[in-house]
Amino acid sequence: MASGSVDEAMRRAIALAARGLGTASPNPVVGCVLLDPDGEVVGEGFHAYAGGPHAEIVALAQAGQRARGGTAVVTLEPCDHTGRTGPCSHALITAGVARVVVAVPDPDPVAAGGAATLRAAGVRVEFGVRAAEAEAGNVAWLTSVRRGWPYVVWKFAATLDGRSAAADGTSMWITSEDARADVHALRGTVDAVIAGVGTVLADDPRLTVRNLRDGTLAIRQPLRVVVDSLGRTPAGARVRDGAAETWIATAAQVGADPEGRVDLPALLAELHRRGVRAALLEGGPSLAGAFLAAGLVDRIVGYVAPRLLGAGPTALAGAGVTTIADAIDLELTDVTQVGTDLRITALPRKREG
Amino acid sequence: MASGSVDEAMRRAIALAARGLGTASPNPVVGCVLLDPDGEVVGEGFHAYAGGPHAEIVALAQAGQRARGGTAVVTLEPCDHTGRTGPCSHALITAGVARVVVAVPDPDPVAAGGAATLRAAGVRVEFGVRAAEAEAGNVAWLTSVRRGWPYVVWKFAATLDGRSAAADGTSMWITSEDARADVHALRGTVDAVIAGVGTVLADDPRLTVRNLRDGTLAIRQPLRVVVDSLGRTPAGARVRDGAAETWIATAAQVGADPEGRVDLPALLAELHRRGVRAALLEGGPSLAGAFLAAGLVDRIVGYVAPRLLGAGPTALAGAGVTTIADAIDLELTDVTQVGTDLRITALPRKREG
Ligand SMILES: NC(=O)c1ccc[n+]([C@@H]2O[C@H](COP(=O)([O-])OP(=O)(O)OC[C@H]3O[C@@H](n4cnc5c(N)ncnc54)[C@H](OP(=O)(O)O)[C@@H]3O)[C@@H](O)[C@H]2O)c1
Ligand SMILES: NC(=O)c1ccc[n+]([C@@H]2O[C@H](COP(=O)([O-])OP(=O)(O)OC[C@H]3O[C@@H](n4cnc5c(N)ncnc54)[C@H](OP(=O)(O)O)[C@@H]3O)[C@@H](O)[C@H]2O)c1
Repeated sequence: MASGSVDEAMRRAIALAARGLGTASPNPVVGCVLLDPDGEVVGEGFHAYAGGPHAEIVALAQAGQRARGGTAVVTLEPCDHTGRTGPCSHALITAGVARVVVAVPDPDPVAAGGAATLRAAGVRVEFGVRAAEAEAGNVAWLTSVRRGWPYVVWKFAATLDGRSAAADGTSMWITSEDARADVHALRGTVDAVIAGVGTVLADDPRLTVRNLRDGTLAIRQPLRVVVDSLGRTPAGARVRDGAAETWIATAAQVGADPEGRVDLPALLAELHRRGVRAALLEGGPSLAGAFLAAGLVDRIVGYVAPRLLGAGPTALAGAGVTTIADAIDLELTDVTQVGTDLRITALPRKREG
Repeated sequence: MASGSVDEAMRRAIALAARGLGTASPNPVVGCVLLDPDGEVVGEGFHAYAGGPHAEIVALAQAGQRARGGTAVVTLEPCDHTGRTGPCSHALITAGVARVVVAVPDPDPVAAGGAATLRAAGVRVEFGVRAAEAEAGNVAWLTSVRRGWPYVVWKFAATLDGRSAAADGTSMWITSEDARADVHALRGTVDAVIAGVGTVLADDPRLTVRNLRDGTLAIRQPLRVVVDSLGRTPAGARVRDGAAETWIATAAQVGADPEGRVDLPALLAELHRRGVRAALLEGGPSLAGAFLAAGLVDRIVGYVAPRLLGAGPTALAGAGVTTIADAIDLELTDVTQVGTDLRITALPRKREG
């Protein structure tokens, strides 16, 4: 069998995996392509939702007897534990698969060990095919499992001169409808949406995933988290409506930092415990500044509107930087026009020291 | 002769014209391609510097007898007046050119009339070929001549969160060396560089066009203009060195606005009188805000660095906007990565009313 077809199968498996983004969590997204001994595709699958069948099981069910002697091409090391479904390692052995090609090893200590079990049963296991691509497709889950707290995306919207509202506080709408729809799509890929109590008091946002045209709610809603040291979120705040789960995270519950505010690492650890792998930090400027100062932001998505204000609150405040040498350096990874706005995606560069 | 070749010749003439950007001023950039009666290119020229030969004269000199009965393809209507050189209309007639194809009519009342003179001599004259493209190549000159004050480009450098310096005032360097070299190239295309006295007092900039590697000065330097109502520019300020001409524009010289500051429309009218067609406004934030509030900015070039500060002076201040509905709307025309930074080019949208 030409190795080109394994490579091609992995590319397809990675594309399949991506279909589970936003619904597979707290599980990873996984894709699987089964090839028969001649290299023909005989089964395909992806992990669609937590509690549903794993990618390998879906693909094996499709392939049936044709999997025997063939190759399973999987984006993530097959699991070895009996969770809500049986271990995939056993299913692959039972089906008579001769070879398993994996992009990325499973970093989860509970699920890992699939490769060892397969090898013990005489199955050839190889790692590393299109690993970087598969890693990128699962970056939030892999990162959060490896280190034990959620992958945090900070989203902001601002004018070209960095203002997130006008001097009188008005901010509807800084960005275009297309950009706002893009934010809702982004919310749909995470497990939690985080906002500071300052934003809740100022704007009374819903923080739900909605169709902006007709206002209908998406079936799956991320957990809404308000970072609110003293529990000042009003009883009638929109985040308290029944449209999605909400957690008003107070310092009493989570723990306090030296200033008496919610301890952010403890907050993220608790979110991880609750199954949150990816979180969207939606502001405001002070909470974003605190997250950035603590090095807790993994990715930045800025919607920059082609407008100027020259006054009003800035998109970011209090990030702990006082001199240019200490600026938080970013690496631009994408710039895309969304409606009339620019969406700028960047990663914070690792700091030395 | 195929009309395709006239179109092709105009494209070439526009490219030739662009070579004069930054040196032709206060004259327009102009390119000319001469075709013989068979449509063969027999001459090419552009206007390289004020006082030098016009594009048509250069092309006619190259073509000699072969221009007879041919077509002159010119980006701007040939001049009809005797300035530092003779009128191009007469030169074309004398050379026996049968047809003149022009992209854009000359808006300058002193130079216009070339088409009429040519027609009176029996030459066919056509307008409008690739007009939008030729107009864009000459936009600063055309705009300034049509309305009588310079075309103003506002340039700023800021972090992704809109800061132009850190909290302690440090700003070297917010942007990359490539971006700074790009600014020097931009300065090389204008006739004047404008800064507020606040910037001169804070940063003591040179405002010259230099090679950033070895510090050598470009041969042609734009006029340095400091907007300084009360004449506070220190005697030892770098803008007063001999490297380029400098004008400290005070309210006493130019006229004052109701607040006693330099009257900006009067400043621009005086610059126009001094031959300035394109000017680069380099800040700072207050002067830029005043220009924008008065609707005096024609183009915006922002260098946005992939860095965050969360504190420090903003790129723009006091633009007269207090509520979101009054934001200064822009139209993005270009986004290019320059070194590690983004260069965002935009045009202010015309305001209604
Ligand atoms: N353009 C955008 O993308 C965007 C997005 C969101 C908001 N906004 C704007 O932002 C403004 C509100 O911003 P804001 O800065 O006042 O509020 P904020 O950032 O939403 O919330 C800040 C508050 O969070 C609480 N907090 C709890 N633990 C914290 C910690 N460890 N570090 C920092 N803060 C902690 C603090 O209040 P307690 O100590 O009382 O808990 C703090 O005052 C609104 O005007 C809104 O329109 C803009
Ligand atoms: N990142 C960048 O691209 C960039 C570029 C330049 C500067 N900067 C930063 O900007 C800071 C200085 O900014 P700034 O706002 O203090 O100074 P500025 O904008 O350079 O100058 C403002 C001053 O210009 C004078 N002025 C005269 N006529 C005026 C008018 N009609 N409208 C407005 N101003 C008029 C006023 O002083 P008088 O009334 O006394 O004349 C006013 O205080 C520095 O920290 C510098 O580093 C950043």
